[in-house]
Amino acid sequence: MVDLILTTFDWVPEMPRGYVRDLRVRWALEEAALPYRVRSVPFRDRSSEHFAHQPFGQVPWLTDGDISIFESGAILLHLGECSDALMPVDPRGRSEAMKWLFAALNSVEMASLPWSILAFSGEISDTPAGKRLNQFLKTRLQHMEPVLAGREWLAGTFSIADILMADVLRLVDRFDGLAEHPACRNYVARATARPSFVKAHTDQMAHFAAAD
Amino acid sequence: MVDLILTTFDWVPEMPRGYVRDLRVRWALEEAALPYRVRSVPFRDRSSEHFAHQPFGQVPWLTDGDISIFESGAILLHLGECSDALMPVDPRGRSEAMKWLFAALNSVEMASLPWSILAFSGEISDTPAGKRLNQFLKTRLQHMEPVLAGREWLAGTFSIADILMADVLRLVDRFDGLAEHPACRNYVARATARPSFVKAHTDQMAHFAAAD
Repeated sequence: MVDLILTTFDWVPEMPRGYVRDLRVRWALEEAALPYRVRSVPFRDRSSEHFAHQPFGQVPWLTDGDISIFESGAILLHLGECSDALMPVDPRGRSEAMKWLFAALNSVEMASLPWSILAFSGEISDTPAGKRLNQFLKTRLQHMEPVLAGREWLAGTFSIADILMADVLRLVDRFDGLAEHPACRNYVARATARPSFVKAHTDQMAHFAAAD
Repeated sequence: MVDLILTTFDWVPEMPRGYVRDLRVRWALEEAALPYRVRSVPFRDRSSEHFAHQPFGQVPWLTDGDISIFESGAILLHLGECSDALMPVDPRGRSEAMKWLFAALNSVEMASLPWSILAFSGEISDTPAGKRLNQFLKTRLQHMEPVLAGREWLAGTFSIADILMADVLRLVDRFDGLAEHPACRNYVARATARPSFVKAHTDQMAHFAAAD
C-alpha cells in the first residue's frame, strides 16, 4: 500500500512559480505513475513541525508511510528505487544514473544557483564577483555541452538524473544563460516536452494560483 | 575480490592541498577499512581518458572492477552500500543518512563553495554580490547550528553524511566562516579528530608533497 504525501508551500510570490522544487518530485511521481497527495504548509509562518520535516525551512518533503524525506535529490533517489521508469535496473545503468544525479546537484547546480541569485539581482555582468561566478558556471556548461550533444538522456534511458539536470538547466535558461550552449538548451526543450513535466508544471502553477 | 582504485591529480598548488576531494573518498575507505590503491593523472594536461572518467576534468574518480564512478557523493554512496561502518543498515537510519548526504552537498555546499570562492578572492565583505552570497550561507548555517548542537552525528551513528558535511563545513572554517556557529565548529573538530580523517589528510598531503 503506497501512501505518498508531497508537502509544499500554500503560496509563493509570482517569481519562483513554476520553479519551486516540489516540481521535481511531481515530475518523478508522474513519470512513475505513482499515486500521491499534495499537502500545503504556510509560506509565511513556518512552524516547528515544518522544521522537523525540513530543517532549512524549505520545501518540498515527501512522506512515505512513517518515513519523511527532505532534499529533492534524496526524494528522487527514494522514488527511483521504487520504479524502473525512474532508474535503470542493471548495475551499470544504475551507476550512470547515480553519477549524473550527483553531477546535476553538486557540479552544475552548485555553480548555477548562485549564478541565478546574482543574475536575478543584476549583479552578474558588471562586478568582479559576478564575473567570477559567471566563469564558474560557463566552465561547467562547457563540459556538459559535448555530453548532451552526444546522447538523448544521461544514463541511456530517461531517469531521475534527467529530471534533476533538466530542472537545474531550465533555471539557467530562464536567465538566458544557455545561449552559447545549444545542446544544453535542446536537452531542456526535450525534457520539458515530456507529458509528465507538462502535467507537473501545470499542477504546480494551479496550486499556487488557487491561493491568490 | 575488491579492487578499488582511487584516481586523483599528480600535483596541485599549495592552496587546495588538504582540501582536494579525493580526501572524502580516502576518509570513507579508511573508515570502512577497505583496501585501495591511489593512481595519479596529470593536473596540467588533462587527457581524453580523464574526461571519459570525469566529464568536468576534475578529480577524484573511483573504479571498482569495471565500474567507474565520479562525483564524491556518488562514490561515497557506492562505498556506503559496501560497508555498515559507513551507513546504517536499518531503513530509518539509512533514510536519515541519505537526507543529510544530499543536504551537505545541495543545501550547505551549494551556498558555501561559491562563498569560499569569493572569500578567497576577498570579495565577500565589501560588494553587494558578496554580501548576498554571505547571507545565503549564513541562513543555511543558522539552521545547521541547532541540528549539530543536538546530536553527535547526523544519522545517529557516524556515516558518509558526516564525511560530506564535515568536509563541507571544514572549508568554511578555513576562511573563519564558523565563528558565530560554535556547534558547527565543534562538529568539524569532532569529525576531523577521527583517526581515519587524520590518516586520509596525512596521505593526501604526502601524495602532493611527493610531486614537488
